[in-house]
Amino acid sequence: MMSDNSRIIIDFEPISRRLFYKKKENFYQLLVNSSIRVRSQCGGFGTCGKCKLLVQQGLKYLNPPTDSEKKVLSEEEITENVRLACQCSIDEDQIDHLKRLPQPQIRVFLPQESLLEDFKILTSGLNKGVNLNPNVKKVFIEVERPNLKTIIPDFERIVTALSSTTKINKDHIEPSIEFESLKKIPLTLRADNHHITLTLYEENKIIDCEAGNTVANNYGIAFDIGTTTLVGYLINLNDGKIYSTASALNPQTAYGEDVVSRITYIKNNKEGLLKLNASVIDAINVIIDEVCAEAKISPSQIYEATFVGNSVMHHIFLNIDPTYIGLSPYVPAIKKDLNIRSKDINLKINRGGYAYMLPLIAGYVGADTTGIILSSEINKESELTLAIDVGTNGEIIVGNKDILATGSCAAGSALEGAHIKNGMRAAAGAIDSLKIDPANLSVRYTTINNKKPLGICGSGIIDAVAEMLKSKIITRSGGFNKNFIDHESFTKKNKGVEFILVKKEQTSINRDITISQNDIRELQMAKAAFYSGTRIILNFLNKADEVELKIKQIFLAGAFGNYINKSNAKFIGMIPDISDEFIYQIGNAAGIGAQNCLLNVNLRDKARKLIKNIKYVEIAVAQEFQTEYAKAMYFPHLNLEYFPSLTEYNDILKR
Amino acid sequence: MMSDNSRIIIDFEPISRRLFYKKKENFYQLLVNSSIRVRSQCGGFGTCGKCKLLVQQGLKYLNPPTDSEKKVLSEEEITENVRLACQCSIDEDQIDHLKRLPQPQIRVFLPQESLLEDFKILTSGLNKGVNLNPNVKKVFIEVERPNLKTIIPDFERIVTALSSTTKINKDHIEPSIEFESLKKIPLTLRADNHHITLTLYEENKIIDCEAGNTVANNYGIAFDIGTTTLVGYLINLNDGKIYSTASALNPQTAYGEDVVSRITYIKNNKEGLLKLNASVIDAINVIIDEVCAEAKISPSQIYEATFVGNSVMHHIFLNIDPTYIGLSPYVPAIKKDLNIRSKDINLKINRGGYAYMLPLIAGYVGADTTGIILSSEINKESELTLAIDVGTNGEIIVGNKDILATGSCAAGSALEGAHIKNGMRAAAGAIDSLKIDPANLSVRYTTINNKKPLGICGSGIIDAVAEMLKSKIITRSGGFNKNFIDHESFTKKNKGVEFILVKKEQTSINRDITISQNDIRELQMAKAAFYSGTRIILNFLNKADEVELKIKQIFLAGAFGNYINKSNAKFIGMIPDISDEFIYQIGNAAGIGAQNCLLNVNLRDKARKLIKNIKYVEIAVAQEFQTEYAKAMYFPHLNLEYFPSLTEYNDILKR
Repeated sequence: MMSDNSRIIIDFEPISRRLFYKKKENFYQLLVNSSIRVRSQCGGFGTCGKCKLLVQQGLKYLNPPTDSEKKVLSEEEITENVRLACQCSIDEDQIDHLKRLPQPQIRVFLPQESLLEDFKILTSGLNKGVNLNPNVKKVFIEVERPNLKTIIPDFERIVTALSSTTKINKDHIEPSIEFESLKKIPLTLRADNHHITLTLYEENKIIDCEAGNTVANNYGIAFDIGTTTLVGYLINLNDGKIYSTASALNPQTAYGEDVVSRITYIKNNKEGLLKLNASVIDAINVIIDEVCAEAKISPSQIYEATFVGNSVMHHIFLNIDPTYIGLSPYVPAIKKDLNIRSKDINLKINRGGYAYMLPLIAGYVGADTTGIILSSEINKESELTLAIDVGTNGEIIVGNKDILATGSCAAGSALEGAHIKNGMRAAAGAIDSLKIDPANLSVRYTTINNKKPLGICGSGIIDAVAEMLKSKIITRSGGFNKNFIDHESFTKKNKGVEFILVKKEQTSINRDITISQNDIRELQMAKAAFYSGTRIILNFLNKADEVELKIKQIFLAGAFGNYINKSNAKFIGMIPDISDEFIYQIGNAAGIGAQNCLLNVNLRDKARKLIKNIKYVEIAVAQEFQTEYAKAMYFPHLNLEYFPSLTEYNDILKR
Repeated sequence: MMSDNSRIIIDFEPISRRLFYKKKENFYQLLVNSSIRVRSQCGGFGTCGKCKLLVQQGLKYLNPPTDSEKKVLSEEEITENVRLACQCSIDEDQIDHLKRLPQPQIRVFLPQESLLEDFKILTSGLNKGVNLNPNVKKVFIEVERPNLKTIIPDFERIVTALSSTTKINKDHIEPSIEFESLKKIPLTLRADNHHITLTLYEENKIIDCEAGNTVANNYGIAFDIGTTTLVGYLINLNDGKIYSTASALNPQTAYGEDVVSRITYIKNNKEGLLKLNASVIDAINVIIDEVCAEAKISPSQIYEATFVGNSVMHHIFLNIDPTYIGLSPYVPAIKKDLNIRSKDINLKINRGGYAYMLPLIAGYVGADTTGIILSSEINKESELTLAIDVGTNGEIIVGNKDILATGSCAAGSALEGAHIKNGMRAAAGAIDSLKIDPANLSVRYTTINNKKPLGICGSGIIDAVAEMLKSKIITRSGGFNKNFIDHESFTKKNKGVEFILVKKEQTSINRDITISQNDIRELQMAKAAFYSGTRIILNFLNKADEVELKIKQIFLAGAFGNYINKSNAKFIGMIPDISDEFIYQIGNAAGIGAQNCLLNVNLRDKARKLIKNIKYVEIAVAQEFQTEYAKAMYFPHLNLEYFPSLTEYNDILKR
């Protein structure tokens, strides 16, 4: 099956995404519909000028600059082929012609300032300097036909043909063949006159054979198995580009929201592990179907899948009992990286394909952390850097080129929208940023994709709490300020008062969107977990090295609301007090780690070496944990000297 | 599960068989019931003295010599602990005491002259000088318990414990673990306080883990997949002994008697390959259950199975389409040896276990031939040796330390009893040898296990035809002598006359057991195939080397009737005319090859090297084939000068 040539492809750089253009779509819609976060304040009406892009190739196929663009962009920008994503689309008259040309004809560059993630730190794959050297390669060969003079069996003739191609078999290791492929050999060889394409795994292992030349159809898929969210990225292994992505709720949430409750479920239910395992495998297979449908390929053209996920997700995905991760001393069954045959885990990719599991670091620091280290290259930084992965299970990495330490904290799922009254995941309609006017407590907000608000996501919750603090609606210890609760922005509920962010008339749920006392507590616990965890790792390193280490740089990774307001994250005391310019949002760094391992097999060696030298800190059992945690529950912290830059707010904070 | 200690074990040498004694059984019955062919003319009444054996250990537990033994054996023999198998059993009074002792306490040596196969050439396994070096080894280790100070996952602690054992990991290759075993690790490790037994495949791959010390339970099974018969040998990989054997009819015979008709069935039936594959796998799994029941072990204690079989059996067993073996130029899909996971082919041994397929040589010279070469070591002989494997597909090997050539002939299944009116496999009640008195045409015969005759097996048919020739009942061209057909030993049937071997009153089938004209034709075709095949291979070697090679030694392998009368085989012209003393019957040499590969993994390297240097002759397409075959149809051959030793029969043969 060849990929459908009648579609128009647009390549977006530096994010290395290949998108398929749909009729009457502008580039902003195309990007947003493909989950690529582009800045916009006007909601795509061409007035804010935030969604600039640079057309590097194929300008002639696009509509001419619109009146809006002529207003917002400078003449120089227009000459340099800068466009606004929301105004730019393919010229209707060009579409039929364009479809007949070899694809892609159009390449677009997205400048850093148009994107919501800091690609300065984290561009994916090829743009990060990851060379293309996948574990799976396809080779087209013509095999000699058999004859009576020298009777050579099919496989042995194939090996001869393969050895004469220069691309492979440098080490003269005799190729082996997977049993599933061997069974196909006799008929495949004769289906197209002894012309076949072999799929090679680790250079020398034949894992598939197809009639004719199918070299172009060589795909891999990278997965991030989050406690709450599953994401899959379909990547073409010949060009390294992402052809489609899909995500889904981890169906295991039905059996427990965090890893501990899932372990408990497994302990208490006879078929518990099997159920949880089957549910995640099923969901992963649905994602595979989705990304394949989007890219119009067959799942059998995916030969390798790479996976990151925390240790419990890793174990359940592999049907390994995670019970002992939940019991002191919290050991996983294995930490080394694994290659597992797709059919052993019922993964619906090619039957000869493989799953690659990135290595774990410890019971509560999983392959997702390995992925973050690989993709962020924190281990190459000269300044001491803190990386935190905000998810239901929060991972903390502190390190630079000399040291590397990790630990994990039970952050809870508040920042993923769970346990928050009107919380939701970062999806269309989620309030992702807001401001409160201290004068009248009126709220201005933005939502993802500018939809009518449905709820509030992680970044919105951080903003809400920070703004409520600044407006003195809440106190440093997190309680509602009694002086305000009779204000019209408050609503009385059975369990107390709630602060109204959006009145029900303006929502699409026909209920007020509010922040409750409990919501604030949930956020407090999450941010205290991150802050105290970071301090404990620092203490550990200080003790070990007898120096006073200071965080100079922060990487924020994970599925945040839309994007996090760095000042507000600092203001509530979630992260240490350093200048905004040294705080970077690096998006789904774990997932990009999985993508990079798919693109270049050498990174797996790197990962193996890396995890040998990482110091692991068991945060929750540290002596000082309880005290540190309790002190970090305050906004921003009981010790205000930890946050010297917040002196302007002294009137609020010192009350 | 430990093996049952309450059973009495007797080790039989030099055949390396460990048998379990059943109450009230004499040693002859024990051997015969275990398919070990012991000579006997009197049927176990202690009068013929053919079943002598030597008690090497444990004489005190046996009954004292019987009156029969005192008559048949010399005083010297009795002093030297020689006994008759049919008179010898365990003393009833000793049984309870003996059962409480560590086993085995009794060892018995079977002299060559008591056995029906020529162990001079072919003793199995250890006695042939095959060292014990199986591919699967078990190691008992104590693993360090986890602690909070240095958190090391289960697998990594196991590797540390494993590396400190001196037995393995010489090459410092990091051990890997099969996915099935990995899943068992957490619970197994904690089931017996971190004491576990690992099963290692190829030194470094962990394929099973069990709680406690289970090193003793390490079994393998060797299989011979014949076109007509399946045989399995259960071997303990710690001591190299065969613990039990079982055989069955290949259920594929229902779909076609020979390999060509099975290929045709597969070509003509949509699910044909699947059906044939499933039927043989099912039968193999039944054999596994049988040998395990007999040895009182669980199939999960079998970790490796080795297989020999012709190329078509090999392909169907692996579910590989054998169609192209049936079409010129007759190429198999692969010839190299294969390691295949047991669960990939639904083999009911340990789920982490492996099947090892010995390498093929060509489309019609399969792994069975490789097995014969390995076990007979024909490639080490100084004299030019002919080895023929008599089965439905007949393989011919000609070689010595300098050259090696093989080919195959369509011998048909006459020698396995098929297509013969009263033919049957070599089982109890089969006439396996006979003599005809030329004076009155009366027949004296023996049957397997001295049962009332049921039919006639391969060796009986050879005898019958040879004796009919000598008695002038048939002519050199294979037709009945018209002068005899009115004799009372003939019976008239619709299609002609038949010579009566046994009158119906003396059979257990209540029908005459006869030889028909068609039976003689079938044997003629079989013997002509072998003889002409041998000549064509010799011609090939002579042409290549420009010398006149002569066969000096013959090995007869395969599931013959009971044992073949060498003179008669020569007399009918099935094998070249050399002195009887240089003709050896080597039993199921292919099966022993499979056993030896199980016992010592180095033999697999040997096999790989061997098959690279074997010359393969496509007998059926040789120019001279038709002529050679036609000439070989005569008894013994059209050219009498090929059989100079038969001059005493000149009056018969020159007629």
